[in-house]
Amino acid sequence: MTIPNDLTHIAFDADDTLWGHEHIFVDAKSRCTELLQPYLSPEMDLEKELYRFERKNLLIFGYGVKGFVLSMIETAIELSNGRITGFELQQIIDLGKEMIAHPIELLPYVEEALAQLGQYYTLLIITKGDLFDQENKIARSGIAHHFTHCEIVSEKTAATYADIFRRHQIDPGKLLMIGNSLRSDVLPVMEAGGHAAHLPYKFTWHHERVGEGDLTSSYFRPESLEQLTHQLLAIQSS
Amino acid sequence: MTIPNDLTHIAFDADDTLWGHEHIFVDAKSRCTELLQPYLSPEMDLEKELYRFERKNLLIFGYGVKGFVLSMIETAIELSNGRITGFELQQIIDLGKEMIAHPIELLPYVEEALAQLGQYYTLLIITKGDLFDQENKIARSGIAHHFTHCEIVSEKTAATYADIFRRHQIDPGKLLMIGNSLRSDVLPVMEAGGHAAHLPYKFTWHHERVGEGDLTSSYFRPESLEQLTHQLLAIQSS
Repeated sequence: MTIPNDLTHIAFDADDTLWGHEHIFVDAKSRCTELLQPYLSPEMDLEKELYRFERKNLLIFGYGVKGFVLSMIETAIELSNGRITGFELQQIIDLGKEMIAHPIELLPYVEEALAQLGQYYTLLIITKGDLFDQENKIARSGIAHHFTHCEIVSEKTAATYADIFRRHQIDPGKLLMIGNSLRSDVLPVMEAGGHAAHLPYKFTWHHERVGEGDLTSSYFRPESLEQLTHQLLAIQSS
Repeated sequence: MTIPNDLTHIAFDADDTLWGHEHIFVDAKSRCTELLQPYLSPEMDLEKELYRFERKNLLIFGYGVKGFVLSMIETAIELSNGRITGFELQQIIDLGKEMIAHPIELLPYVEEALAQLGQYYTLLIITKGDLFDQENKIARSGIAHHFTHCEIVSEKTAATYADIFRRHQIDPGKLLMIGNSLRSDVLPVMEAGGHAAHLPYKFTWHHERVGEGDLTSSYFRPESLEQLTHQLLAIQSS
Protein backbone atom coordinates (compact mmCIF):
# COMPACT_ATOMS: atom_id res chain seq x y z
CA MET A 1 0.00 0.00 0.00
CA THR A 2 1.22 3.45 -0.82
CA ILE A 3 0.32 6.65 0.94
CA PRO A 4 -1.76 8.97 -1.27
CA ASN A 5 0.28 11.85 -2.65
CA ASP A 6 -2.39 14.53 -2.24
CA LEU A 7 -2.72 14.58 1.55
CA THR A 8 -3.20 18.05 3.06
CA HIS A 9 -3.97 17.25 6.71
CA ILE A 10 -2.37 14.98 9.28
CA ALA A 11 -4.27 14.37 12.50
CA PHE A 12 -2.70 12.84 15.59
CA ASP A 13 -4.30 11.06 18.49
CA ALA A 14 -2.69 12.30 21.72
CA ASP A 15 -2.55 9.73 24.57
CA ASP A 16 -0.19 6.87 23.65
CA THR A 17 0.48 8.42 20.24
CA LEU A 18 2.16 11.75 21.06
CA TRP A 19 2.94 10.91 24.69
CA GLY A 20 2.83 7.86 26.91
CA HIS A 21 -0.37 7.44 28.90
CA GLU A 22 -1.59 3.89 29.43
CA HIS A 23 1.51 2.99 31.45
CA ILE A 24 0.32 5.52 34.08
CA PHE A 25 -2.91 3.52 34.44
CA VAL A 26 -1.04 0.20 34.47
CA ASP A 27 1.17 1.53 37.25
CA ALA A 28 -1.81 2.95 39.20
CA LYS A 29 -3.61 -0.40 39.00
CA SER A 30 -0.58 -2.20 40.32
CA ARG A 31 -0.27 0.23 43.24
CA CYS A 32 -3.97 -0.23 44.02
CA THR A 33 -3.56 -4.00 44.00
CA GLU A 34 -0.84 -3.59 46.59
CA LEU A 35 -3.02 -1.29 48.69
CA LEU A 36 -5.95 -3.71 48.54
CA GLN A 37 -3.84 -6.81 49.16
CA PRO A 38 -4.99 -7.24 52.81
CA TYR A 39 -8.63 -7.40 51.62
CA LEU A 40 -8.22 -9.63 48.59
CA SER A 41 -8.79 -13.34 48.73
CA PRO A 42 -6.52 -15.42 46.48
CA GLU A 43 -9.24 -16.17 43.93
CA MET A 44 -10.07 -12.47 43.35
CA ASP A 45 -8.92 -10.87 40.11
CA LEU A 46 -8.71 -7.15 40.88
CA GLU A 47 -8.00 -6.17 37.27
CA LYS A 48 -11.08 -8.03 36.08
CA GLU A 49 -13.30 -6.58 38.83
CA LEU A 50 -12.04 -3.07 38.18
CA TYR A 51 -12.79 -3.38 34.48
CA ARG A 52 -16.33 -4.51 35.37
CA PHE A 53 -16.85 -1.22 37.27
CA GLU A 54 -15.01 0.83 34.67
CA ARG A 55 -17.09 -0.47 31.78
CA LYS A 56 -20.33 0.18 33.65
CA ASN A 57 -19.17 3.61 34.79
CA LEU A 58 -17.93 4.74 31.36
CA LEU A 59 -21.56 5.32 30.43
CA ILE A 60 -21.99 7.56 33.48
CA PHE A 61 -18.58 9.17 33.94
CA GLY A 62 -16.96 9.04 30.48
CA TYR A 63 -13.20 8.62 29.96
CA GLY A 64 -10.48 10.03 32.15
CA VAL A 65 -8.70 9.82 35.48
CA LYS A 66 -11.62 11.09 37.61
CA GLY A 67 -13.93 8.33 36.40
CA PHE A 68 -11.11 5.82 36.83
CA VAL A 69 -10.57 6.89 40.45
CA LEU A 70 -14.28 6.66 41.22
CA SER A 71 -14.38 3.17 39.67
CA MET A 72 -11.31 2.18 41.66
CA ILE A 73 -12.96 3.38 44.89
CA GLU A 74 -16.13 1.44 44.11
CA THR A 75 -14.11 -1.68 43.33
CA ALA A 76 -12.17 -1.32 46.60
CA ILE A 77 -15.36 -0.90 48.63
CA GLU A 78 -17.00 -3.92 47.05
CA LEU A 79 -13.99 -6.27 47.11
CA SER A 80 -13.23 -5.38 50.74
CA ASN A 81 -16.90 -5.79 51.59
CA GLY A 82 -16.91 -2.23 52.92
CA ARG A 83 -13.95 -2.80 55.23
CA ILE A 84 -11.55 -0.54 53.36
CA THR A 85 -10.82 2.51 55.50
CA GLY A 86 -11.25 6.18 54.69
CA PHE A 87 -7.50 6.76 54.83
CA GLU A 88 -6.89 3.94 52.35
CA LEU A 89 -9.44 5.42 49.98
CA GLN A 90 -7.74 8.79 50.36
CA GLN A 91 -4.59 7.08 49.04
CA ILE A 92 -6.51 6.09 45.91
CA ILE A 93 -7.63 9.71 45.42
CA ASP A 94 -4.06 10.92 45.94
CA LEU A 95 -2.92 8.39 43.36
CA GLY A 96 -5.45 9.89 40.93
CA LYS A 97 -4.07 13.37 41.59
CA GLU A 98 -0.58 12.09 40.90
CA MET A 99 -1.79 10.58 37.62
CA ILE A 100 -3.27 13.93 36.57
CA ALA A 101 -0.07 15.79 37.42
CA HIS A 102 2.18 13.17 35.79
CA PRO A 103 4.82 14.79 33.58
CA ILE A 104 4.16 14.55 29.86
CA GLU A 105 6.71 12.24 28.27
CA LEU A 106 6.74 12.64 24.51
CA LEU A 107 7.16 9.41 22.57
CA PRO A 108 10.24 8.87 20.39
CA TYR A 109 10.59 11.09 17.32
CA VAL A 110 7.39 13.08 18.04
CA GLU A 111 9.13 16.45 18.17
CA GLU A 112 11.12 15.79 15.00
CA ALA A 113 8.05 14.47 13.16
CA LEU A 114 5.92 17.52 14.02
CA ALA A 115 8.63 20.02 13.12
CA GLN A 116 9.15 18.39 9.73
CA LEU A 117 5.56 17.47 8.82
CA GLY A 118 4.31 20.91 9.87
CA GLN A 119 6.19 22.41 6.94
CA TYR A 120 4.03 20.56 4.41
CA TYR A 121 0.82 19.54 6.14
CA THR A 122 -1.80 21.11 8.39
CA LEU A 123 -1.48 19.29 11.71
CA LEU A 124 -4.37 18.55 14.08
CA ILE A 125 -4.84 16.81 17.40
CA ILE A 126 -8.00 14.71 17.73
CA THR A 127 -8.16 13.21 21.20
CA LYS A 128 -10.90 11.77 23.36
CA GLY A 129 -11.18 12.07 27.09
CA ASP A 130 -11.78 14.54 29.84
CA LEU A 131 -11.77 18.12 28.50
CA PHE A 132 -9.96 19.58 31.50
CA ASP A 133 -7.29 16.84 31.62
CA GLN A 134 -6.65 16.85 27.89
CA GLU A 135 -6.37 20.65 27.68
CA ASN A 136 -3.90 20.60 30.55
CA LYS A 137 -1.82 17.89 28.92
CA ILE A 138 -1.74 19.66 25.57
CA ALA A 139 -0.73 22.90 27.32
CA ARG A 140 2.03 21.14 29.27
CA SER A 141 3.29 19.10 26.29
CA GLY A 142 5.33 21.92 24.78
CA ILE A 143 4.22 20.89 21.27
CA ALA A 144 0.85 22.66 21.08
CA HIS A 145 2.20 25.31 18.70
CA HIS A 146 2.56 22.75 15.90
CA PHE A 147 -1.19 22.17 15.69
CA THR A 148 -3.71 24.31 13.84
CA HIS A 149 -6.63 22.76 15.72
CA CYS A 150 -6.97 20.64 18.84
CA GLU A 151 -10.23 18.73 19.03
CA ILE A 152 -11.16 17.11 22.33
CA VAL A 153 -14.15 14.80 21.98
CA SER A 154 -16.01 12.53 24.39
CA GLU A 155 -16.04 9.54 22.01
CA LYS A 156 -14.42 8.77 18.66
CA THR A 157 -17.00 7.45 16.24
CA ALA A 158 -17.26 7.88 12.46
CA ALA A 159 -19.84 10.61 13.16
CA THR A 160 -17.43 12.46 15.46
CA TYR A 161 -14.77 12.49 12.76
CA ALA A 162 -17.24 13.45 10.02
CA ASP A 163 -18.35 16.40 12.17
CA ILE A 164 -14.76 17.57 12.65
CA PHE A 165 -14.02 17.27 8.91
CA ARG A 166 -17.17 19.26 8.10
CA ARG A 167 -16.50 22.00 10.64
CA HIS A 168 -12.95 22.55 9.43
CA GLN A 169 -13.86 21.99 5.76
CA ILE A 170 -11.38 19.13 5.44
CA ASP A 171 -11.72 16.71 2.52
CA PRO A 172 -11.50 13.37 4.39
CA GLY A 173 -9.73 11.74 1.42
CA LYS A 174 -6.86 14.17 1.99
CA LEU A 175 -6.47 13.47 5.69
CA LEU A 176 -4.32 10.88 7.43
CA MET A 177 -5.07 10.06 11.07
CA ILE A 178 -2.20 8.60 13.12
CA GLY A 179 -3.03 6.79 16.34
CA ASN A 180 -2.48 3.80 18.58
CA SER A 181 -6.05 2.57 18.81
CA LEU A 182 -7.63 0.56 16.01
CA ARG A 183 -11.01 1.08 17.66
CA SER A 184 -10.80 4.86 18.09
CA ASP A 185 -8.21 6.17 15.63
CA VAL A 186 -8.27 3.81 12.67
CA LEU A 187 -11.63 2.15 11.99
CA PRO A 188 -13.93 5.18 12.51
CA VAL A 189 -11.67 7.51 10.48
CA MET A 190 -11.76 5.11 7.56
CA GLU A 191 -15.53 4.81 7.92
CA ALA A 192 -15.69 8.62 7.64
CA GLY A 193 -13.67 8.49 4.39
CA GLY A 194 -10.24 9.31 5.77
CA HIS A 195 -6.92 7.46 5.76
CA ALA A 196 -5.38 6.03 8.91
CA ALA A 197 -2.02 4.78 10.14
CA HIS A 198 -1.80 2.50 13.16
CA LEU A 199 1.13 2.97 15.55
CA PRO A 200 0.51 0.64 18.49
CA TYR A 201 1.69 1.53 22.00
CA LYS A 202 3.23 -1.04 24.33
CA PHE A 203 0.03 -1.26 26.39
CA THR A 204 -3.56 -1.40 25.12
CA TRP A 205 -6.50 -0.97 27.49
CA HIS A 206 -9.07 -3.81 27.24
CA HIS A 207 -11.63 -1.29 26.15
CA GLU A 208 -9.69 -0.27 23.05
CA ARG A 209 -9.09 -3.81 21.82
CA VAL A 210 -10.91 -4.99 18.71
CA GLY A 211 -11.49 -8.48 17.42
CA GLU A 212 -9.67 -9.69 14.33
CA GLY A 213 -13.01 -9.78 12.53
CA ASP A 214 -13.28 -5.99 12.68
CA LEU A 215 -10.03 -5.45 10.83
CA THR A 216 -9.44 -4.64 7.23
CA SER A 217 -6.05 -4.28 5.62
CA SER A 218 -6.72 -0.85 4.18
CA TYR A 219 -4.90 1.12 6.84
CA PHE A 220 -1.20 1.82 7.07
CA ARG A 221 1.05 -0.07 9.43
CA PRO A 222 4.31 1.82 9.55
CA GLU A 223 7.19 0.40 11.57
CA SER A 224 7.57 3.62 13.52
CA LEU A 225 6.65 7.29 13.52
CA GLU A 226 10.10 7.97 12.12
CA GLN A 227 9.56 5.69 9.15
CA LEU A 228 6.09 7.13 8.49
CA THR A 229 7.45 10.68 8.67
CA HIS A 230 10.11 9.84 6.08
CA GLN A 231 7.45 8.42 3.78
CA LEU A 232 5.26 11.49 4.18
CA LEU A 233 8.20 13.79 3.46
CA ALA A 234 9.34 11.73 0.48
CA ILE A 235 5.97 12.31 -1.19
CA GLN A 236 6.49 16.05 -0.89
CA SER A 237 9.92 16.02 -2.47
CA SER A 238 9.02 13.70 -5.36
CA MET B 1 -29.81 51.16 28.39
CA THR B 2 -31.15 49.94 25.11
CA ILE B 3 -30.26 46.73 23.37
CA PRO B 4 -28.31 47.34 20.13
CA ASN B 5 -30.47 46.88 17.05
CA ASP B 6 -27.86 45.12 14.92
CA LEU B 7 -27.39 41.91 16.94
CA THR B 8 -26.96 38.77 14.85
CA HIS B 9 -26.03 36.16 17.49
CA ILE B 10 -27.46 35.22 20.87
CA ALA B 11 -25.42 32.89 23.06
CA PHE B 12 -26.84 31.12 26.09
CA ASP B 13 -25.10 29.72 29.10
CA ALA B 14 -26.61 26.30 29.90
CA ASP B 15 -26.58 25.33 33.61
CA ASP B 16 -28.91 27.64 35.59
CA THR B 17 -29.75 29.61 32.45
CA LEU B 18 -31.47 27.07 30.19
CA TRP B 19 -32.09 24.49 32.89
CA GLY B 20 -31.83 24.31 36.68
CA HIS B 21 -28.55 22.94 37.97
CA GLU B 22 -27.21 24.48 41.18
CA HIS B 23 -30.22 23.21 43.16
CA ILE B 24 -28.98 19.66 42.44
CA PHE B 25 -25.70 20.51 44.19
CA VAL B 26 -27.50 22.28 47.05
CA ASP B 27 -29.63 19.18 47.55
CA ALA B 28 -26.61 16.83 47.32
CA LYS B 29 -24.75 18.87 49.93
CA SER B 30 -27.68 18.70 52.29
CA ARG B 31 -27.94 14.91 51.86
CA CYS B 32 -24.20 14.59 52.53
CA THR B 33 -24.52 16.67 55.69
CA GLU B 34 -27.15 14.22 56.88
CA LEU B 35 -24.94 11.25 56.03
CA LEU B 36 -21.96 12.77 57.84
CA GLN B 37 -23.98 13.90 60.89
CA PRO B 38 -22.67 11.13 63.17
CA TYR B 39 -19.09 12.27 62.52
CA LEU B 40 -19.56 16.03 62.71
CA SER B 41 -18.91 17.98 65.87
CA PRO B 42 -21.23 20.97 66.45
CA GLU B 43 -18.59 23.54 65.57
CA MET B 44 -17.85 22.03 62.14
CA ASP B 45 -19.17 23.81 59.06
CA LEU B 46 -19.44 21.12 56.39
CA GLU B 47 -20.30 23.57 53.63
CA LYS B 48 -17.22 25.65 54.38
CA GLU B 49 -14.93 22.60 54.62
CA LEU B 50 -16.30 21.19 51.37
CA TYR B 51 -15.68 24.47 49.56
CA ARG B 52 -12.10 24.43 50.86
CA PHE B 53 -11.56 21.04 49.14
CA GLU B 54 -13.56 22.04 46.07
CA ARG B 55 -11.56 25.21 45.48
CA LYS B 56 -8.25 23.36 45.83
CA ASN B 57 -9.45 20.50 43.63
CA LEU B 58 -10.86 22.72 40.87
CA LEU B 59 -7.28 23.25 39.73
CA ILE B 60 -6.78 19.49 39.51
CA PHE B 61 -10.21 18.15 38.57
CA GLY B 62 -11.96 21.07 36.85
CA TYR B 63 -15.72 21.66 37.07
CA GLY B 64 -18.39 18.99 37.18
CA VAL B 65 -20.03 16.29 39.26
CA LYS B 66 -17.05 13.87 39.25
CA GLY B 67 -14.73 16.45 40.80
CA PHE B 68 -17.48 17.42 43.25
CA VAL B 69 -17.91 13.79 44.36
CA LEU B 70 -14.16 13.36 44.82
CA SER B 71 -14.05 16.57 46.89
CA MET B 72 -17.01 15.39 48.94
CA ILE B 73 -15.27 12.06 49.63
CA GLU B 74 -12.08 13.85 50.70
CA THR B 75 -14.07 16.18 52.97
CA ALA B 76 -15.88 13.22 54.52
CA ILE B 77 -12.63 11.35 55.17
CA GLU B 78 -10.99 14.37 56.74
CA LEU B 79 -13.93 15.55 58.86
CA SER B 80 -14.58 12.02 60.15
CA ASN B 81 -10.87 11.61 60.81
CA GLY B 82 -10.87 8.54 58.55
CA ARG B 83 -13.73 6.86 60.43
CA ILE B 84 -16.25 7.13 57.60
CA THR B 85 -16.97 3.65 56.27
CA GLY B 86 -16.63 2.32 52.74
CA PHE B 87 -20.39 1.80 52.49
CA GLU B 88 -21.05 5.41 53.51
CA LEU B 89 -18.62 6.63 50.87
CA GLN B 90 -20.38 4.41 48.34
CA GLN B 91 -23.53 6.38 49.16
CA ILE B 92 -21.72 9.59 48.19
CA ILE B 93 -20.70 8.03 44.84
CA ASP B 94 -24.28 6.86 44.28
CA LEU B 95 -25.46 10.38 45.02
CA GLY B 96 -23.06 11.63 42.31
CA LYS B 97 -24.48 9.14 39.82
CA GLU B 98 -27.98 10.35 40.66
CA MET B 99 -26.85 13.94 40.07
CA ILE B 100 -25.49 13.01 36.63
CA ALA B 101 -28.70 11.22 35.68
CA HIS B 102 -30.95 13.96 37.07
CA PRO B 103 -33.70 14.89 34.61
CA ILE B 104 -33.19 18.15 32.75
CA GLU B 105 -35.75 20.69 33.91
CA LEU B 106 -35.93 23.62 31.52
CA LEU B 107 -36.35 26.99 33.20
CA PRO B 108 -39.50 29.06 32.59
CA TYR B 109 -40.03 30.42 29.05
CA VAL B 110 -36.84 28.77 27.67
CA GLU B 111 -38.66 26.78 24.99
CA GLU B 112 -40.75 29.77 23.88
CA ALA B 113 -37.71 32.08 23.84
CA LEU B 114 -35.63 29.73 21.68
CA ALA B 115 -38.44 29.05 19.21
CA GLN B 116 -39.04 32.78 18.72
CA LEU B 117 -35.47 34.11 18.85
CA GLY B 118 -34.26 31.35 16.51
CA GLN B 119 -36.28 32.97 13.72
CA TYR B 120 -34.18 36.13 13.79
CA TYR B 121 -30.88 35.31 15.47
CA THR B 122 -28.22 32.60 15.26
CA LEU B 123 -28.35 30.81 18.62
CA LEU B 124 -25.36 29.29 20.42
CA ILE B 125 -24.74 27.48 23.68
CA ILE B 126 -21.53 28.42 25.47
CA THR B 127 -21.19 26.34 28.62
CA LYS B 128 -18.36 25.40 30.89
CA GLY B 129 -17.92 22.11 32.68
CA ASP B 130 -17.27 18.47 32.11
CA LEU B 131 -17.42 17.61 28.38
CA PHE B 132 -19.14 14.28 28.89
CA ASP B 133 -21.75 15.63 31.36
CA GLN B 134 -22.53 18.73 29.31
CA GLU B 135 -22.90 16.81 26.03
CA ASN B 136 -25.25 14.40 27.75
CA LYS B 137 -27.32 17.20 29.20
CA ILE B 138 -27.58 19.03 25.89
CA ALA B 139 -28.59 15.77 24.19
CA ARG B 140 -31.24 15.06 26.84
CA SER B 141 -32.55 18.64 26.97
CA GLY B 142 -34.74 18.32 23.87
CA ILE B 143 -33.74 21.83 22.75
CA ALA B 144 -30.41 21.09 21.04
CA HIS B 145 -31.92 21.59 17.56
CA HIS B 146 -32.33 25.34 18.20
CA PHE B 147 -28.57 25.91 18.41
CA THR B 148 -26.18 26.33 15.49
CA HIS B 149 -23.14 25.66 17.70
CA CYS B 150 -22.64 24.22 21.17
CA GLU B 151 -19.33 25.17 22.72
CA ILE B 152 -18.25 23.32 25.86
CA VAL B 153 -15.23 24.94 27.49
CA SER B 154 -13.22 24.22 30.61
CA GLU B 155 -13.20 27.84 31.81
CA LYS B 156 -14.94 31.04 30.68
CA THR B 157 -12.41 33.82 30.35
CA ALA B 158 -12.30 36.75 27.91
CA ALA B 159 -9.76 34.71 25.90
CA THR B 160 -12.13 31.72 25.72
CA TYR B 161 -14.90 33.93 24.32
CA ALA B 162 -12.54 35.72 21.92
CA ASP B 163 -11.43 32.34 20.58
CA ILE B 164 -15.04 31.22 20.01
CA PHE B 165 -15.91 34.49 18.25
CA ARG B 166 -12.84 34.15 16.02
CA ARG B 167 -13.46 30.50 15.15
CA HIS B 168 -17.07 31.15 14.17
CA GLN B 169 -16.29 34.54 12.60
CA ILE B 170 -18.71 36.33 14.90
CA ASP B 171 -18.43 40.09 15.32
CA PRO B 172 -18.48 40.37 19.15
CA GLY B 173 -20.32 43.70 18.95
CA LYS B 174 -23.23 41.86 17.35
CA LEU B 175 -23.48 39.14 19.98
CA LEU B 176 -25.49 39.06 23.20
CA MET B 177 -24.59 36.48 25.83
CA ILE B 178 -27.33 35.52 28.29
CA GLY B 179 -26.33 33.84 31.54
CA ASN B 180 -26.75 33.59 35.29
CA SER B 181 -23.14 34.14 36.29
CA LEU B 182 -21.61 37.61 36.37
CA ARG B 183 -18.18 36.04 36.70
CA SER B 184 -18.47 33.59 33.79
CA ASP B 185 -21.18 34.87 31.46
CA VAL B 186 -21.18 38.64 31.80
CA LEU B 187 -17.81 40.19 32.68
CA PRO B 188 -15.55 38.13 30.33
CA VAL B 189 -17.95 38.49 27.37
CA MET B 190 -17.91 42.27 27.76
CA GLU B 191 -14.13 42.18 28.06
CA ALA B 192 -14.08 40.33 24.72
CA GLY B 193 -16.19 43.08 23.14
CA GLY B 194 -19.61 41.42 23.34
CA HIS B 195 -22.87 42.37 25.03
CA ALA B 196 -24.25 40.51 28.01
CA ALA B 197 -27.53 40.09 29.87
CA HIS B 198 -27.59 38.82 33.44
CA LEU B 199 -30.44 36.52 34.46
CA PRO B 200 -29.65 35.34 38.00
CA TYR B 201 -30.73 31.90 39.23
CA LYS B 202 -32.13 31.33 42.71
CA PHE B 203 -28.84 29.79 43.89
CA THR B 204 -25.30 31.01 43.17
CA TRP B 205 -22.28 28.85 43.97
CA HIS B 206 -19.66 30.67 46.12
CA HIS B 207 -17.20 30.24 43.31
CA GLU B 208 -19.29 32.24 40.84
CA ARG B 209 -19.83 35.20 43.14
CA VAL B 210 -18.10 38.47 42.36
CA GLY B 211 -17.47 41.48 44.53
CA GLU B 212 -19.38 44.71 43.89
CA GLY B 213 -16.10 46.30 42.84
CA ASP B 214 -15.93 44.09 39.74
CA LEU B 215 -19.25 45.29 38.44
CA THR B 216 -19.98 47.85 35.81
CA SER B 217 -23.40 48.97 34.77
CA SER B 218 -22.93 48.25 31.10
CA TYR B 219 -24.69 44.93 30.99
CA PHE B 220 -28.39 44.29 30.69
CA ARG B 221 -30.49 43.31 33.68
CA PRO B 222 -33.81 42.12 32.28
CA GLU B 223 -36.57 41.15 34.68
CA SER B 224 -36.95 37.75 33.09
CA LEU B 225 -36.12 35.75 30.00
CA GLU B 226 -39.63 36.47 28.80
CA GLN B 227 -39.16 40.23 29.06
CA LEU B 228 -35.75 40.04 27.34
CA THR B 229 -37.19 37.92 24.54
CA HIS B 230 -39.93 40.50 23.95
CA GLN B 231 -37.31 43.25 23.76
CA LEU B 232 -35.18 41.26 21.31
CA LEU B 233 -38.20 40.56 19.13
CA ALA B 234 -39.39 44.17 19.27
CA ILE B 235 -36.09 45.30 17.71
CA GLN B 236 -36.71 42.99 14.78
CA SER B 237 -40.21 44.28 14.08
CA SER B 238 -39.34 47.97 14.42
